Amino acid sequence: MYSIGLDFGTNSVRAVILDIEEGIEIADAICNYPSGVDGIIVDSRNPHLARQNPSDYNVSMEKSVREAVKKAKGSKKAFNPGKVIGVGVDTTGSTPLPVDRNLVPLSFHKEFRNNKNAMACLWKDHTGADEAEEITALATRIRPDYLARIGGVYSSEWFFSKLLHLARTDKKVFDAAAGYVELCDYIPAILSGKKSPGETVRSICAAGHKAMYNDVWCGLPDDGFLHKLDRSFKNVREKLYGKAYPAGQLAGALCEEWAGKTGLPAGIPVSVGAFDAHMGAVGAGVRPGVLVKVIGTSTCDMTVAPAGKKLRDIPGICGMVPHSIIPGYTGIEAGQSAVGDIFNWFVKRFAPAGVKDPHRQYALAASRIKPGQTGLLALDWNNGNRNILVDQKLTGLILGFTLDTGPGEVYRTLIEATGFGARAIIERIEEYGVEIDEIVATGGIPDKNPLLMQIYSDITGRSFKIAASSQTCAVGAAVFGAIAAGKEKGGYRDVDDARKKTCRFKKAVYRPDSRNRKVYDRLYGLYKNVHDVFGLKSANMNLHHVMKDLLKIKGEVTNG
Amino acid sequence: MYSIGLDFGTNSVRAVILDIEEGIEIADAICNYPSGVDGIIVDSRNPHLARQNPSDYNVSMEKSVREAVKKAKGSKKAFNPGKVIGVGVDTTGSTPLPVDRNLVPLSFHKEFRNNKNAMACLWKDHTGADEAEEITALATRIRPDYLARIGGVYSSEWFFSKLLHLARTDKKVFDAAAGYVELCDYIPAILSGKKSPGETVRSICAAGHKAMYNDVWCGLPDDGFLHKLDRSFKNVREKLYGKAYPAGQLAGALCEEWAGKTGLPAGIPVSVGAFDAHMGAVGAGVRPGVLVKVIGTSTCDMTVAPAGKKLRDIPGICGMVPHSIIPGYTGIEAGQSAVGDIFNWFVKRFAPAGVKDPHRQYALAASRIKPGQTGLLALDWNNGNRNILVDQKLTGLILGFTLDTGPGEVYRTLIEATGFGARAIIERIEEYGVEIDEIVATGGIPDKNPLLMQIYSDITGRSFKIAASSQTCAVGAAVFGAIAAGKEKGGYRDVDDARKKTCRFKKAVYRPDSRNRKVYDRLYGLYKNVHDVFGLKSANMNLHHVMKDLLKIKGEVTNG
Repeated sequence: MYSIGLDFGTNSVRAVILDIEEGIEIADAICNYPSGVDGIIVDSRNPHLARQNPSDYNVSMEKSVREAVKKAKGSKKAFNPGKVIGVGVDTTGSTPLPVDRNLVPLSFHKEFRNNKNAMACLWKDHTGADEAEEITALATRIRPDYLARIGGVYSSEWFFSKLLHLARTDKKVFDAAAGYVELCDYIPAILSGKKSPGETVRSICAAGHKAMYNDVWCGLPDDGFLHKLDRSFKNVREKLYGKAYPAGQLAGALCEEWAGKTGLPAGIPVSVGAFDAHMGAVGAGVRPGVLVKVIGTSTCDMTVAPAGKKLRDIPGICGMVPHSIIPGYTGIEAGQSAVGDIFNWFVKRFAPAGVKDPHRQYALAASRIKPGQTGLLALDWNNGNRNILVDQKLTGLILGFTLDTGPGEVYRTLIEATGFGARAIIERIEEYGVEIDEIVATGGIPDKNPLLMQIYSDITGRSFKIAASSQTCAVGAAVFGAIAAGKEKGGYRDVDDARKKTCRFKKAVYRPDSRNRKVYDRLYGLYKNVHDVFGLKSANMNLHHVMKDLLKIKGEVTNG
Repeated sequence: MYSIGLDFGTNSVRAVILDIEEGIEIADAICNYPSGVDGIIVDSRNPHLARQNPSDYNVSMEKSVREAVKKAKGSKKAFNPGKVIGVGVDTTGSTPLPVDRNLVPLSFHKEFRNNKNAMACLWKDHTGADEAEEITALATRIRPDYLARIGGVYSSEWFFSKLLHLARTDKKVFDAAAGYVELCDYIPAILSGKKSPGETVRSICAAGHKAMYNDVWCGLPDDGFLHKLDRSFKNVREKLYGKAYPAGQLAGALCEEWAGKTGLPAGIPVSVGAFDAHMGAVGAGVRPGVLVKVIGTSTCDMTVAPAGKKLRDIPGICGMVPHSIIPGYTGIEAGQSAVGDIFNWFVKRFAPAGVKDPHRQYALAASRIKPGQTGLLALDWNNGNRNILVDQKLTGLILGFTLDTGPGEVYRTLIEATGFGARAIIERIEEYGVEIDEIVATGGIPDKNPLLMQIYSDITGRSFKIAASSQTCAVGAAVFGAIAAGKEKGGYRDVDDARKKTCRFKKAVYRPDSRNRKVYDRLYGLYKNVHDVFGLKSANMNLHHVMKDLLKIKGEVTNG
């Protein structure tokens, strides 16, 4: 038996076919979104805007599934599409789109064609920055509970910032919408032939992490709060939903239309969707005590604690949402706003003349430098600080420059800075009683950058395993497709059951070097000093020692 | 009548012939030193080492003077070498060399040939860093007066650091030397045929600024202090000197040998030497109320106050030495350890692929950015901070990076950082009662970088004039040659007399723009915050506002 996982990324959709018994992918296919710049609709006058054309989702999903099915046939004789027993879906988020009463995206209407506000508002759209501040301010004042478990600050990347911005800037679209659905709810809904927003089954992952949904206050924020935010929000809950569900539950059954388009059997279960990182964590083997780090352009750090366990709110952490990653567990999510993006920025903007393949060159140069030998220290805040400071108005810093400092040293320092940021998150989570015994890395970077992995291991003093699959998100989605199908149909009973089959690691494990670790402990102390003085209102400190200590460490390390 | 000025720079010697009556140069010629890398003997195993081959001085001086004389003949019919009535000399410093009892450099001896320790120890040689710290520590403890007027910290670039390092690391050379002479004393001595270190007339400029010489304590540091520094220094004063003299006084008369070599008349007066920057200040028109800024790879800031005026010690300023720049005035010197060097570093190490003439490109990009629009702030400490912190163990810092920050923005920010450093020096000098009414810029940068000049004007809120001559050092040397010749022989009476003839400015004056100034006042406030937290032991501060204020200013400036 097989399950199919669909992973809707920022630029493309990927389909993976999982052999349920063996727990391995037998085929995958990727299809880029046709619109905009790499699938993103941008606006030259507004760099904060990032939208997507909803028709791209349909077109690319159909192609990628057909291609994966074709490949599966080629790679395994026993395979035929009739043996696919479930479909799972993960997407970026929060990526909401306005729909009409028939669940048709407003952008499909002639009236709103080419209106960017009627399209899907991609996770990294920051047009709602002011609205996010407003929501934070109001919630802090009258509903502090709403923010306590999502780090204390509401982000411009989240659902209500985007909805409020829409209400303020395009009343026509806002009023015309019969509903607003997250992409991770929309895809399962259309796959299962839902015909209205009301029938759409909503993901607790999106609801809990991005829309202040919590069973403690019976779901979404109350009408009083919403109305106070904006008069136009008076009855907005009518266009939303009352209840959200964990992945693995049934969103519906594959409809005839999509069975026809994809060649999959009609009627098979479609799982409730979730965000890509969360399903990636499942694909990488998350469980209590295991932190999964998805390391790519940014990072997402995830672990779970048994839902019964009494947890204190962890300040500065993105979200703690029951059932959000694995049903029956509280999902704990944190992350860094920029990791690979920082290296890309540096290489793109500051690569010296004539350097070919600068990532590789710099990594090579950086690998020849010992910890502490750069004399440099950086703050990894070029895109703000998501955790543990939750402050988008922080910016990057590099200090320790001499007239000899070269790009290899800066490159290494930027890697180290993201490593220190990673350590700050782990320390914060553990400080609040959630233990982390093991780290599993996945995402685009771990495979490509062994130097980074070793630095992270040395900085955190932890071993890092690497997930064997490079498509953990799509695999996670397929796992939930198989869970939705159920054990009796040949699927999985639950995530624990699936993990035994699907969870594999690469041979190479990165282990901390005790000598490097000592140096990094000293550097981390300096990082925290600078981090606190620039990052916390309350930290009064003198940093006169910082540059001198860096030179001292550099001298000691260089001379043996 | 004419005077000749000889300017011994880091890489070459320049000869200028000045028409005394007209006050303008009629010819100049430059000759590079033949040895080492651009005239500097380096050591691949020790980046701090920078020496010069003393024979280069003779060879290049002879060539450059002959060439200048030849050019003068071509450019002015009335000229003939017999009308040259005086010679002035300026050099880098502290650049001491060990000599034998006949004033022959030890490196000319077969025994010491190829021994770098027997060569001239160039101003920027930093091998004596530990020794400098030792001298600072001892003087702070038992002779605080020695440091009070030279900024409180003894530098590795200065005379006794170099001598002590020599005594510690090459006893053979140290013991073999009958004397140690500064380059600015050595050149006038050989030109006037001196045959021993004892006959050599010493410059008060070198002595006062670099060798803790002061009439208040009867000259050089006392034997007790020197002996305490090192046992080998017990009788070192015997190899040094008792008295030093200001430029314009007679070092001797041009000897037959050098008259023959150069074609100049034997017997004409040779002025006491001085450091290049100081003679450059005179060439640029320094007087009370006028600050001359020599802006090049580093900067030197100079002004004078009447010697009779009661001056408080100005903490963090390099030197306050009576008669050091203009006889009868107290010379006040400060500076920044790296200015052009920082821009060169950035361009050399971080110029993106394919950028041709990056200085020009970046200046162009930077000129399109408004003050405050970069969102960045930097500390100009890549080569330590000479003033006002006097701390070589400080390093550079840049903050405010986003994922959009480009090299044009960084380039502008680095210029601004040096401008803020310049302002800190001016404010410190004025704070202690020395007023600055006018600024004159000279050196390699002002002509080449109008953007920098405008930024400096906006940051300091002052007008900047540019010295008309691009050889103010050599012109200053020629002025002192003419002063040594005396008014009755057709020379100048004194520096005031000379200034009336020689002091000229370029037409373009950089004046502060009131709007830019306001923005820079805000940025300077932030610079000072960061400057103090990293630069002063005593500053306890929170910098949580810095990145936010920068973003706020950026937003305001960008939106008009």
